[in-house]
Amino acid sequence: MSDEHTVKSFDGEINRLNDVIIEMASLTKEQVRDAVTVVVKRDSELAGEIIEKDPAINNLELESHELTMRLLALRQPVAIDLRNIVVSIKISSDLERIGDYAANVAKRALVLNQLPPVKQARTIKNMGRVTYDLLKDVIDAYEHQDVKKALDVWHRDEEVDDMYTSIFRELLTYMMEDTHNITACTHLLFIARNLERIGDHATNIAEDIHFMIKGKPPTGRRPMGDVDGEFDIFDH
Amino acid sequence: MSDEHTVKSFDGEINRLNDVIIEMASLTKEQVRDAVTVVVKRDSELAGEIIEKDPAINNLELESHELTMRLLALRQPVAIDLRNIVVSIKISSDLERIGDYAANVAKRALVLNQLPPVKQARTIKNMGRVTYDLLKDVIDAYEHQDVKKALDVWHRDEEVDDMYTSIFRELLTYMMEDTHNITACTHLLFIARNLERIGDHATNIAEDIHFMIKGKPPTGRRPMGDVDGEFDIFDH
Repeated sequence: MSDEHTVKSFDGEINRLNDVIIEMASLTKEQVRDAVTVVVKRDSELAGEIIEKDPAINNLELESHELTMRLLALRQPVAIDLRNIVVSIKISSDLERIGDYAANVAKRALVLNQLPPVKQARTIKNMGRVTYDLLKDVIDAYEHQDVKKALDVWHRDEEVDDMYTSIFRELLTYMMEDTHNITACTHLLFIARNLERIGDHATNIAEDIHFMIKGKPPTGRRPMGDVDGEFDIFDH
Repeated sequence: MSDEHTVKSFDGEINRLNDVIIEMASLTKEQVRDAVTVVVKRDSELAGEIIEKDPAINNLELESHELTMRLLALRQPVAIDLRNIVVSIKISSDLERIGDYAANVAKRALVLNQLPPVKQARTIKNMGRVTYDLLKDVIDAYEHQDVKKALDVWHRDEEVDDMYTSIFRELLTYMMEDTHNITACTHLLFIARNLERIGDHATNIAEDIHFMIKGKPPTGRRPMGDVDGEFDIFDH
């Protein structure tokens, strides 16, 4: 009986940890979606809401961290349970960082909304949608322990990188054409960079899911943290 | 005897983990120092060396990760040992990311070296020195389990943020004065941002050291992930 009680209680705690991660993931996903909307629709009110909600994600990270420490100290987990717990430390840290990027996009959008509109804000929309889809899919993969879906995200990150390179060039050209665009385009450049970084963190989460389920990281091409297209010299 | 053997072997493994973290930290510190030199001295050869060395940091992260999993699975550590092991997962991830930022600075420096010099590259030097000192001090704090030194780093990160705000404004102004500077100044902006992010990661490590030793995160002002000065509107 005592053993059974222990097992049940362990399952309860590990489920609670997974619930916290999923709650964190849902909130982070909404923040990313809203951050892109803020840029495209110049919605300062929504930007304010994103900035206000960011601490909730940080608090969930602390909660997941406490649960993790408790599970490791009292439960001596092994095999997939241990990997699940360790991976949750890394995933919660990735989600917290994605939340920071979303809040940073919102803050930059508040600056953009005080400046005349620049057409390039529209090109952020597509990149935002692709990045959001990556994040959504990797969260689904975590929730359903779907290693195939996680690997798919791992490979698709390249699409975000290509979009980033294209936006980077477009924004630089636009700045060169008219110096009045420099402040706005600089913030858009950083917004695009934030989205590209969100894609990288989604890729990290995909790797962690693979490790959790398979006990080893994915093999093959390891996606780069840098976008090489950004380092080409082009006409200026 | 068997117990003593187990204890010795546990100490050996935890020391090995700490050694890997310290090796990783030393290499990362060198990479940051060299990355700043590359920008200031326009040294493309050194930039190439930094880019080549980056995978060694990633490999050390994998090694520390394997040691961590092994210690958790076989040793059932508690209290400070458990915190030490969990914190090493986070610190190795921060160091790996700092290494990525250093490599990114080196790649941008290679672009800068193909363009006419801009004087703002010099202002990166001071920011680079302050960032390097933060990193050096937090690594010392880890090596000597010095919570006071870690807290000092935690507070000093603001200095890096202030320098970033100042460089951000200076670079924007310079771009507006002469559109020929736009490509170079954009890369310098991202280089400054990378240094600011390295400071943030040093701050994360300081928090982790505090948690490892004291069993709780530091209290008081929690340094922000964003630099507010960047979001002011100024003349353009």
